[in-house]
Amino acid sequence: MDLYIDREELLRALGRAQGIVERHTTNLALSHVLLSAQEGRLRVTASDTQITLVADYPARIEQEGELTVEAQTFFQIIRALGEPTVHLFATGNNRLGIQCGRSEFKVVSLPAEEYPTIATQNGSQAMRVRGGDLRRIIEETLFSVSTDESRFGLNGTHLEEVTAEDGTPRLRMVTTDGSRLSFSEAPYEGEFAMGARMLLPRKGLEQVRRLVEDPDEAWSIGFSERSASFTTETLRLFVGLVEGEFPEYRKVLPSGHSRRVVLDRAAFDAELKRIAIMASDRNHSARFDFQQDKLVLSATSVDTGDARTEVAAELEGEPLQTGFNISYFRDILQKVAPSDKIVLEMGEALDPCIVRFPGRDDCLFVVMPMRLD
Amino acid sequence: MDLYIDREELLRALGRAQGIVERHTTNLALSHVLLSAQEGRLRVTASDTQITLVADYPARIEQEGELTVEAQTFFQIIRALGEPTVHLFATGNNRLGIQCGRSEFKVVSLPAEEYPTIATQNGSQAMRVRGGDLRRIIEETLFSVSTDESRFGLNGTHLEEVTAEDGTPRLRMVTTDGSRLSFSEAPYEGEFAMGARMLLPRKGLEQVRRLVEDPDEAWSIGFSERSASFTTETLRLFVGLVEGEFPEYRKVLPSGHSRRVVLDRAAFDAELKRIAIMASDRNHSARFDFQQDKLVLSATSVDTGDARTEVAAELEGEPLQTGFNISYFRDILQKVAPSDKIVLEMGEALDPCIVRFPGRDDCLFVVMPMRLD
Repeated sequence: MDLYIDREELLRALGRAQGIVERHTTNLALSHVLLSAQEGRLRVTASDTQITLVADYPARIEQEGELTVEAQTFFQIIRALGEPTVHLFATGNNRLGIQCGRSEFKVVSLPAEEYPTIATQNGSQAMRVRGGDLRRIIEETLFSVSTDESRFGLNGTHLEEVTAEDGTPRLRMVTTDGSRLSFSEAPYEGEFAMGARMLLPRKGLEQVRRLVEDPDEAWSIGFSERSASFTTETLRLFVGLVEGEFPEYRKVLPSGHSRRVVLDRAAFDAELKRIAIMASDRNHSARFDFQQDKLVLSATSVDTGDARTEVAAELEGEPLQTGFNISYFRDILQKVAPSDKIVLEMGEALDPCIVRFPGRDDCLFVVMPMRLD
Repeated sequence: MDLYIDREELLRALGRAQGIVERHTTNLALSHVLLSAQEGRLRVTASDTQITLVADYPARIEQEGELTVEAQTFFQIIRALGEPTVHLFATGNNRLGIQCGRSEFKVVSLPAEEYPTIATQNGSQAMRVRGGDLRRIIEETLFSVSTDESRFGLNGTHLEEVTAEDGTPRLRMVTTDGSRLSFSEAPYEGEFAMGARMLLPRKGLEQVRRLVEDPDEAWSIGFSERSASFTTETLRLFVGLVEGEFPEYRKVLPSGHSRRVVLDRAAFDAELKRIAIMASDRNHSARFDFQQDKLVLSATSVDTGDARTEVAAELEGEPLQTGFNISYFRDILQKVAPSDKIVLEMGEALDPCIVRFPGRDDCLFVVMPMRLD
């Protein structure tokens, strides 16, 4: 192997690989990246066996070849280099030579044969989604996946096809941890082919989100029996699916509401942040006292003291007192694309609260209230 | 107690206190700040018993009084508030009321009597130093204090008075950890009165460095038997001294040198950073091969590989091969005020290396070489 590559391009390749390779692994090769020099491109493969990224970067190849090298050291070296072009070459004794300006490194490497063989199947049918849409639906839902790996059916992200009011097909991504639920939708083309009893794992979707750079780039999403592939012209990400049946979440969605509250989003966010300081005990709970023209928030901590604040609100329906985990609302406000207003639709004190954003028919959030003493 | 204070001013007060109060302390009161409202100012006292800050901030006092409140919660609350003025008041039941805009907090407090009594003595004689100079000499020396608390005599910073070449008096701050030494000097006025067998502790000087905001503000430094005071018009910091006799460091300073090397500072720094990646084993050691027109740096890691790089250098004297702990040079380059060049003065391979910066007769650094295999 002997090649010249743009330093920025290589840095991008290794930055992407960092999120995937395992730092502390019993299989040494999994802390490495596989480098394959072929026909005008360097292919960089990174994997933790569940998630595999195969991506191509333009390079001037003097001699084809393959080898693996420890990902983190390689990244550190390339980051510290100062000239625009990097020369990579295999030395005789299982080392990768890295030469740039007056600096030369020889890094311990392993032969390509020691890199694990990874099943990489694109799936026969695929759908296409815009990069920006793909990133958005992940950001707007991933935060409410259950982090408890034993919650079978909740420990991953559900995908399904729905039809928008205008009749166009949409891809809906849904997550829940049992106390809250989020969904967000994006237009797609092609055929939806994900198995009903399969979920997408959190780490895989985090990687997809990181990999989307150009919002207008087209991504193809394909499914084989146990994995999904996310591909663009230059990269392919394979994600092992999680087995599990997502709950019948539509049953949780209330069919109507007797109360509707409109809040200024930024003002609501600021007051939640203030009340959160005193709501660190007991599941971050606070009292929500919905009045005709304002929402009064209050929280008490036995050790620290108490807090009370309010935010202007337009309430349709009768006043209501209930309790919520503040961080559920803060997560929504932090992750959902910017807007001026936020709308809460509620029934009685212990009914689920629906959170909507005006002008957005493509996302919806449900927050379960808490019983306060 | 009842007062109104500018939020920014209060935030500044509590930010300063954060560095001093103990988070996890067996004495509950030490995680608190003492608030004393009196005659047009709020006095905020923070202490870990070894270091005490007493600082005054302008405030509109409606009713004088004192109480203590947990420092971190108080800081979090003030940081989250949105209006420019904060109303602080004692409630009947041992709470501090905090009111700002539509938000109101009541935070658990302790009566002022429960706050520890702290000896605060200014010292009868004092010297005066410019804030900017004080900060500079701390930054240029603090990094080479021994972090080993059992190294009696090395686990603190030494101060002494010296006379500059132009005959003016200077305050010299000196630190060493046994493998390297740093000193830096600043002009002063008044009388130097620190005891010979006393050292300034690291945490105290870190606080002084943080407290210097205006480089032109005058700082008075006074000494009593077991403590030092650092004071400006609005604040007083009391620092308990560390007992210990600083070594006779002048004996370590070589009286002459047979080799002198001039390096571009930025280029040297960049190459040290590169070589450091492969010098993570064995005390961060690297080989320094001084040649007529360049310095060749090389390092080997059994597990990772090896690295070689070079930087242009002007050498007076014979070529020399020796070894150094790279991080000692990186610390110096990171902490010492900017300059274009760096000068190394050396004797033989195992003689101490003197590091100077052209145009700076007020600081000097010594780095001991390492024996390489």
